[in-house]
Parts: sequence; C-alpha cells; structure tokens
Amino acid sequence: MDIKKKADTLRRLKSVEGHVRGVEKMIEEDAYCIDVIGQIQAIQAALNKVKAQILDDHLHHCVITAVRGEDADERERVLSEIAEVYQAATKV
Amino acid sequence: MDIKKKADTLRRLKSVEGHVRGVEKMIEEDAYCIDVIGQIQAIQAALNKVKAQILDDHLHHCVITAVRGEDADERERVLSEIAEVYQAATKV
Amino acid sequence: MDIKKKADTLRRLKSVEGHVRGVEKMIEEDAYCIDVIGQIQAIQAALNKVKAQILDDHLHHCVITAVRGEDADERERVLSEIAEVYQAATKV
Amino acid sequence: MDIKKKADTLRRLKSVEGHVRGVEKMIEEDAYCIDVIGQIQAIQAALNKVKAQILDDHLHHCVITAVRGEDADERERVLSEIAEVYQAATKV
Repeated sequence: MDIKKKADTLRRLKSVEGHVRGVEKMIEEDAYCIDVIGQIQAIQAALNKVKAQILDDHLHHCVITAVRGEDADERERVLSEIAEVYQAATKV
Repeated sequence: MDIKKKADTLRRLKSVEGHVRGVEKMIEEDAYCIDVIGQIQAIQAALNKVKAQILDDHLHHCVITAVRGEDADERERVLSEIAEVYQAATKV
Repeated sequence: MDIKKKADTLRRLKSVEGHVRGVEKMIEEDAYCIDVIGQIQAIQAALNKVKAQILDDHLHHCVITAVRGEDADERERVLSEIAEVYQAATKV
Repeated sequence: MDIKKKADTLRRLKSVEGHVRGVEKMIEEDAYCIDVIGQIQAIQAALNKVKAQILDDHLHHCVITAVRGEDADERERVLSEIAEVYQAATKV
C-alpha cells in the first residue's frame, strides 16, 4: 500500500476504535438497546469500507503481479484467495 | 464457462426455482412464518453458492485474460468490477 | 397473514421465480459473469424484502399473541426464535 | 441489562477494541492484504455476536414490557423497531 492509502486506512481504523469505545460507554450508561445496535451496524459498515479499500489495493498490486507472472501455482493461489474472500463475505 | 460447469450452474438454478415454488406453497398453506423465513434463507445461501462459482470461473478466465493483456483500460475495468462486486456483497 | 398481504407475498415470490428463470437464460446464452452476479444479487435483495414482510407480520400476530398469553414457555420460545432469525441474518 | 450480561458485553467490546488495534499494527507492518481482511471479518463476526446478545436482552425486557403493556402506540413502536433492525441486518 502506498503511504497515502496506508495513512487513510489507519485513520479509518482509529475512528472505528473510537467508535467501539463510544459503544462501550453507551452500554455502561444503559443506552437504549436499539440505538446501541444501530451504532454497531455503523461500525461494521465502516469496516466493510476498510475491507473494500484493502481488497482494491490488493487487486491492483499483488493480483496483477501474480497474474502477469510466470508462476502458475502462485497465480492460482492468488485468484483462489479472491474467490474465498468473496465467498466469506456472502454468507447469508 | 465450460459445458460441465454450465450444466452444474443451471442445475443449481433449477433447484432454486423449485425451492421458491416450495415457499409459495408454504405461504398458500399458511406455514409457520419462521419456517418460511428459514427456507428463504436456504435459497439465499444456494444463490450465494452460484455467485461464488460464477465469480471463480470469471477470475480464472476473463480476469486472467484481461490482466495478462496489453489493454490497460480493460485491465482496470475488470479489476474494478471485482472490487465492486465484493463491495456489493459486503453491505451490512 | 391476511388475504391482501398473502397475495402480495405470493406475487413477489412469483416475480423471484421469473427472475431466476431469467438468470438461467443468461447462463445458457453465456451472458457476462458480472451481469449474472448482479441479477442474482437483485434476487437476493427481493427475497430479503419478502423475509422482512413475513417477519413483520409474524411480530404483529404470533409474537403479540404469545407475549400477551399466559404460557411462559411459549413466550420464551417465540422470543428465542426472533433472536435466532436475527442471528442467522447477521452472519458475516 | 443485568450486571453479569453488561460485564460480558463490555468484555467483548474491549476485545474488539484490542482486535482493531491489532489490525492497525498489521497495516503498519504491511501484513498480507488477505490476512488483514480475514482479521476484519473476525471483528465483524464478534460484533454480530454482541448485537445478537443485545437484541436477545431487548426482546426479553423492553419488548415483553411493551407488548404486555396497555399503550398500543408504544407496542407498535417497539415491534416496528425489531422489524427495522432485522431489515438493516439483511441488506444483501
């Protein structure tokens, strides 16, 4: 990952960390259950954004390198990983 | 898609179609709501399996061809599509 | 479910059935993989809508009856089912 | 939430917080993209567990109170919230 993307990803994760602490506070202060669930959903959406960014970067670097390379096993490995990551994301 | 994979995908989709008709019958016969929801979840899981198969095939054909090809725009297009499909799958 | 809601749910399921047949045709005609995946995602979204309607109806009938009733076991059973259905829906 | 459940939920959230910090470290040390995505998926699964616990508690307290109560608007509000939380969880 280039320095700029790395900084952006870290910034988003720091924000998720703060958001989780916010939810802890809500629990401590007996906030309304449905509001807490809403905040956790927002955290999960933010994490989806981070995953999408990381995958995008991965596709444009590791995957291109592996697919254009001469090592057929490595190519196969990298493409299978993408398929697995997708399948993991789509469990109902 | 080769003939064998195509036949397998079609077989799975025919099975999904039958499963949907089964759920219609459950609704007509006033089956218990939670059982109906369970069957719909099973249909969605079967569709996830179909999507994963199609993506796997896509990665091993179109994506390899585009990434190894000389057309930078086409390569970019194909990789962005994968990123989009993944993002669509991960909405919370 | 009242007659009107039942008719609406059946209409949606019939539409899903037709949509699945459309995807089969796309496979037979070697449509572009990413387009097929997009259509399957649309089917899953339509099924989510059906599940949400059924759950909504369930909450307003079976759940109210059970929770207001005198049978503590039945109440517990019905509420646990809602919790399970939710958990099944949120698997990452 | 009773004191024991509250402590358990807070313990889980603290663990999620630590897990997010672990992912930040992975990013800083240029860990392999697919491994990072795997860890983020684990965090999201842990958050699903927390959401399920909170909903379960909500069903057994607020929902029972509202549904057994005499205020029809409040009953409607609480049941609609459950339907909404479910729908939010099932977006494809």
